Amino acid sequence: MEKLVVIGLGLIGGSLALDLKKRNGYTVFGIDENAEHIKKALELGIIDSEIDFNQIADASVVIIAVPVNIISQITLKVLDVVSDDTLVFDVGSVKNEICKAIQNHSKRKNFVAAHPLAGTEFSGPEAAILNLFDEKVNILCETDKTDWKILDKAFSLFKKLNMRIKMMSPEEHDRHIAYVSHLSHVSSFMLGKTVLGIEKNEQHIFDMASTGFASTVRLAKSSANTWAPIFLQNKENVIRSLDEYIKNLSEFKKMIEDNNDEGLRETMNSTNYLKTILKGIK
Amino acid sequence: MEKLVVIGLGLIGGSLALDLKKRNGYTVFGIDENAEHIKKALELGIIDSEIDFNQIADASVVIIAVPVNIISQITLKVLDVVSDDTLVFDVGSVKNEICKAIQNHSKRKNFVAAHPLAGTEFSGPEAAILNLFDEKVNILCETDKTDWKILDKAFSLFKKLNMRIKMMSPEEHDRHIAYVSHLSHVSSFMLGKTVLGIEKNEQHIFDMASTGFASTVRLAKSSANTWAPIFLQNKENVIRSLDEYIKNLSEFKKMIEDNNDEGLRETMNSTNYLKTILKGIK
Repeated sequence: MEKLVVIGLGLIGGSLALDLKKRNGYTVFGIDENAEHIKKALELGIIDSEIDFNQIADASVVIIAVPVNIISQITLKVLDVVSDDTLVFDVGSVKNEICKAIQNHSKRKNFVAAHPLAGTEFSGPEAAILNLFDEKVNILCETDKTDWKILDKAFSLFKKLNMRIKMMSPEEHDRHIAYVSHLSHVSSFMLGKTVLGIEKNEQHIFDMASTGFASTVRLAKSSANTWAPIFLQNKENVIRSLDEYIKNLSEFKKMIEDNNDEGLRETMNSTNYLKTILKGIK
Repeated sequence: MEKLVVIGLGLIGGSLALDLKKRNGYTVFGIDENAEHIKKALELGIIDSEIDFNQIADASVVIIAVPVNIISQITLKVLDVVSDDTLVFDVGSVKNEICKAIQNHSKRKNFVAAHPLAGTEFSGPEAAILNLFDEKVNILCETDKTDWKILDKAFSLFKKLNMRIKMMSPEEHDRHIAYVSHLSHVSSFMLGKTVLGIEKNEQHIFDMASTGFASTVRLAKSSANTWAPIFLQNKENVIRSLDEYIKNLSEFKKMIEDNNDEGLRETMNSTNYLKTILKGIK
């Protein structure tokens, strides 16, 4: 049976393991520096066995699903040992740094820089679920640097997951994702912080959450281990998006201060255009 | 059959009409200055007939579900004509202004200031749905100024809707709701505006929405007609919450600029406490 190695058994790594085991019949091996994660992943049937870096040379596929601050070092370590036929891909939310880090490695052609746009606000092996990736987009970067047979293997695997593939340069990816994904997380975290800071009465927060707060603050439940490194690694783009966001908030505040009813309506009406763009997305 | 009059046939008015008709057997009459709303509400079976202000004297219940900027004038107009036995309640998201506006009316005792904490991002009669209010909180203000028989009728009606009743002063209501509800709407609208402002490629927005953007920006689909008046009427509280929010965003941005990994983690970890508070809410 073909050997799948998943490094990092959190939400994304765990979900990939579950789905690829089921859909592709892999024997799944796990690596995670957190012993609790290994234990949980074995219990939940996410992996068949634990494995060590020196046993992965003959793996068919190695998935690197660790926080972005350690992706580069782990990927280099993996590329050092895998065979010519091994497909190695990461799933990080920032792509520029990893693409640069491995660009001169002799096994660069074994690597695919991927970002499957899927997830929930939960984390750890317990958060792993089946069918997380169906119909979702998977962004691949610098695929021209991957061996065509390895890339072909990656395509087959992503097709098994029912993912829609998009190609982008790492710079382009990091710029777009800062606005659409990373900024959403910061805005949600800070909304949560603001409400927690002012509302001493937890029952009030619970009671009033149905007014839109619960969904808007959903991402504030996300893991700091995942997100602190993402914000720092995509620093420039995230800061630019935050500057823009704060500017828009300040302008909106000014309109409220000035009783500028027309300006408020105009702003909200044009933002309503998202209804059209996001049609069909829940 | 008892006569229920609903003024303003949008999401909330329409949903109350549907549910109370079904659960309490009322004959439902509608008033809406938008002729299209009346037509749609008749088509959808939300109301049985249109009615005029001079025909509502014998109504058992009158619900005022119009935008907050016209709630006071409509409520005064209604109180001028209803009988001693009519329960009149509004459903506005700001409570201080309406409570002040009607405080000296001879029919003050017929009125209950209510805010059912329920809704979706959609608007108009087409957005009306059954079971919207079940298990949701309904905040009532200054109920000591309502006649006990009228208040008793209101309690029966809200119990039929399976709502949980909370009492609060109007000032308290407006202060809490600014943070938990109104701020969520502003943060979502401005997230939408920021992304629309930078992302010229609509396909990119659609493709990347599954990264958390879709849910965080959900409220940005809400109606400007509803929300511009709310922000203006709860001005002071909304501005205070926005100041706090912008301050938190700026501090978080500073941590990113300073590579303050520890600060970022600490901030996100403490905000994760929302997981505990919001447990069970979807």
